[in-house]
Parts: sequence; structure tokens; C-alpha cells
Amino acid sequence: MDKVITISRQYGSGGREIGQKLADAWGIPFYDNELITRAAKESGFAEAAFESAEARANNSLLYSIARGTAHFSGQDMGFSVSNLSLDDKLYIAQAEVIRKCAAEGPCVIVGRCADYILRKRDDLVNIFVYADMEFRKERAIRIDHMEEEKIESAILKIDKRRANYHNFHTGEKWGRIENYSLCVDSGRIGTDKAAEVIRLYVESL
Amino acid sequence: MDKVITISRQYGSGGREIGQKLADAWGIPFYDNELITRAAKESGFAEAAFESAEARANNSLLYSIARGTAHFSGQDMGFSVSNLSLDDKLYIAQAEVIRKCAAEGPCVIVGRCADYILRKRDDLVNIFVYADMEFRKERAIRIDHMEEEKIESAILKIDKRRANYHNFHTGEKWGRIENYSLCVDSGRIGTDKAAEVIRLYVESL
Repeated sequence: MDKVITISRQYGSGGREIGQKLADAWGIPFYDNELITRAAKESGFAEAAFESAEARANNSLLYSIARGTAHFSGQDMGFSVSNLSLDDKLYIAQAEVIRKCAAEGPCVIVGRCADYILRKRDDLVNIFVYADMEFRKERAIRIDHMEEEKIESAILKIDKRRANYHNFHTGEKWGRIENYSLCVDSGRIGTDKAAEVIRLYVESL
Repeated sequence: MDKVITISRQYGSGGREIGQKLADAWGIPFYDNELITRAAKESGFAEAAFESAEARANNSLLYSIARGTAHFSGQDMGFSVSNLSLDDKLYIAQAEVIRKCAAEGPCVIVGRCADYILRKRDDLVNIFVYADMEFRKERAIRIDHMEEEKIESAILKIDKRRANYHNFHTGEKWGRIENYSLCVDSGRIGTDKAAEVIRLYVESL
């Protein structure tokens, strides 16, 4: 398997778990929250600063990071880096980490607009994982210990946040079929079998 | 395999061919244009009348067909059957045929809003097949002998027609991920392998 796989997923669909299963099956790296750690280490940032865009507003330091790690100059793109929001600067630093991970070889990356950030790579395969609400509720309660009360609106809120994050940073619509090579409803077959279906697709390339 | 499979597809993606491959592999009926023939025969219509909604406006005959084959009464749904357009009446007659096909047992049905018409069946699996424009152009020229000039706009026009037909009759958006259990980009792996991936998904249910 010589591809870079990105997985976008609805909250509770098991997309992260499926990504881990795929990486294990292929014996390749898996990047999810590790991405934050790695970004933090490479950029000399404290991990905590990356966990929330609101956490700190140390703009001058972020500015130098964004400059130091980004391949492009903000000025070339018609904006001034110093005018970027903290959120944008974090995005730029994370994008750079994602590019480095992919450059190291085949891997599975979950979330964080990796599908868009790596769109120019020929070896890229974008996967979308989704599921019915019952499946997602059950997982949210069992795995993330989410409260049962108002769980549906809580789940939809997380999806909304993911969609907004993606749409804002990419200008493309999250969950639009054409952005992916394969979209799998994991709710009907479970995460093990969903991983098998994705594996067959990728190994058919 | 004990499921009813519907395939929705972008023009040129090979969705019809994939549907045929699946039906052959499972040894079950495949319905596409045959659907029209069957609808025509069962309703006592001339086939030609079904081929184009504009072809004839024999309203009183269509009215009796719509009444005779539809499970619901138009009045119950807040409209008068006699006020339905010819197009709507054809849709009702075709929907009835699709329901009958599905009631007879496992089968593969391509297009014609079958995904929506059969949405209450527990054994339903909706698949969406799509592909990049280059793949679709090549197939349109080779298989449908489409002219190379302005082919891209011709392809997009057919998709637009399919989307409009679906959206009009179902009130749902054609090609929206959540309407399907699996969405496959056939352009990257070809129709044979796409059929294998779909087969694995369906047989995992």
C-alpha cells in the first residue's frame, strides 16, 4: 500500500477507529491528535496552545511559527500574515505538519482538512465515514461517555463545528461526495467491516 | 444475497454497467430500461408513451392507470389525481412497477428514484456511483458514441436532468451522501473493481 489516506468523518461514526484499524493493517503511521503533539513539538509550541484556538493569543510567536513553517508567503496570497487570526495561524502550522507527515510516506490522517491540504498529491485517497444517528449515539455514550440527555443536538453540534472548520479553511463543502474517493455508511456494517471495504478499495488502486 | 440494491449514478460513471455486473454475480434480476418495458406491458401502455413524458397527453387513460396501480389515493395526499401532470402520472406508474419488482425479491435497480420509492424497505441498500470527468468523457465517447465537441457540457446537462428529476419527485437532493449506504468513485478503480467493493459492502450486511 503506497497511498496517503485521509479520513473525514461524522462524529460518532467510528471514522477514527476505522483509520486506526487501516493503519494497523497496513503497518503505517496513524495521525490524529498525535498531529497536534507533533505540530507542537516541531514548532516549539506548548501542546496546550494548540488544543484550543482561543487558549492563548501570543500573536508574535505564532506569527514567526507560521512564517517559519509555511511554504508560501502570506503576501504572495494577497494577505498580510500579521493580520491573520490566531485560528488561521494554527491552521497554517498544522497544515505544514500534515504535509510533512505525508511526505514521509504512506499514512492515515484523520480530520483537520488533510483532504484539502494534500489535494495536489497523486497518491492521495480521501475517505468519508458517516452513520445513522442511533449508531452514533450508542458510540458517543459508550466510548466518549456523552450524557444521554440532548445527545442528538450535541452530536449535530460537533458535526456542525467540523463542517464550519472545513468550509472556512478550504472554501469547499464538507461531506460533498466529489471530494472523496469512497464514502461509507459504517452504521450498517460496523467499523471492522467498513475498514475491510475501504481496504479493498484502496488496494484496488 | 437477500437485498434490494438501487444504484444512482453520474452519467458516464459506469453505474449501469456496475449494476449489471452485480446482478450477474448474484444471479438476480437487473432493472433499467427494462423497467419501462415492464411498466408499459403491465399497464397496457404502448412503450413509446413511456419513453418521453411529452410524447402523448392521453390524460384520461393515464389517470386510470395511476388510480389502478397507485397504493394511495391522490385525494388523501391533498391533491386531485386529475390535476397531475402527465409527467407525475408516469412517475406514479413507474413507482408502482419498481415496488412490484422489489416485492418479487432481491434485485438491482438503476435510476428512476428507486432509492426514494423503496425507502421504507428494510432490505434496501442505496449505492451512488460517480467519477472524474476524464473517465466519464472516455466512456461517453466509446460506449454512447457521444460527439467529442462540447462533451463536458453535454455530460453535465444529463447529470443536471437526473438531479432535477430526482429532486422534483422526491424533495431530496440527488447525490447527497446520507441518502446512500456507499458512494464509490469508479473512475479511480474501474467498473470491475467498483463492483467488487460494492459486493463486499452488501455481503457484509
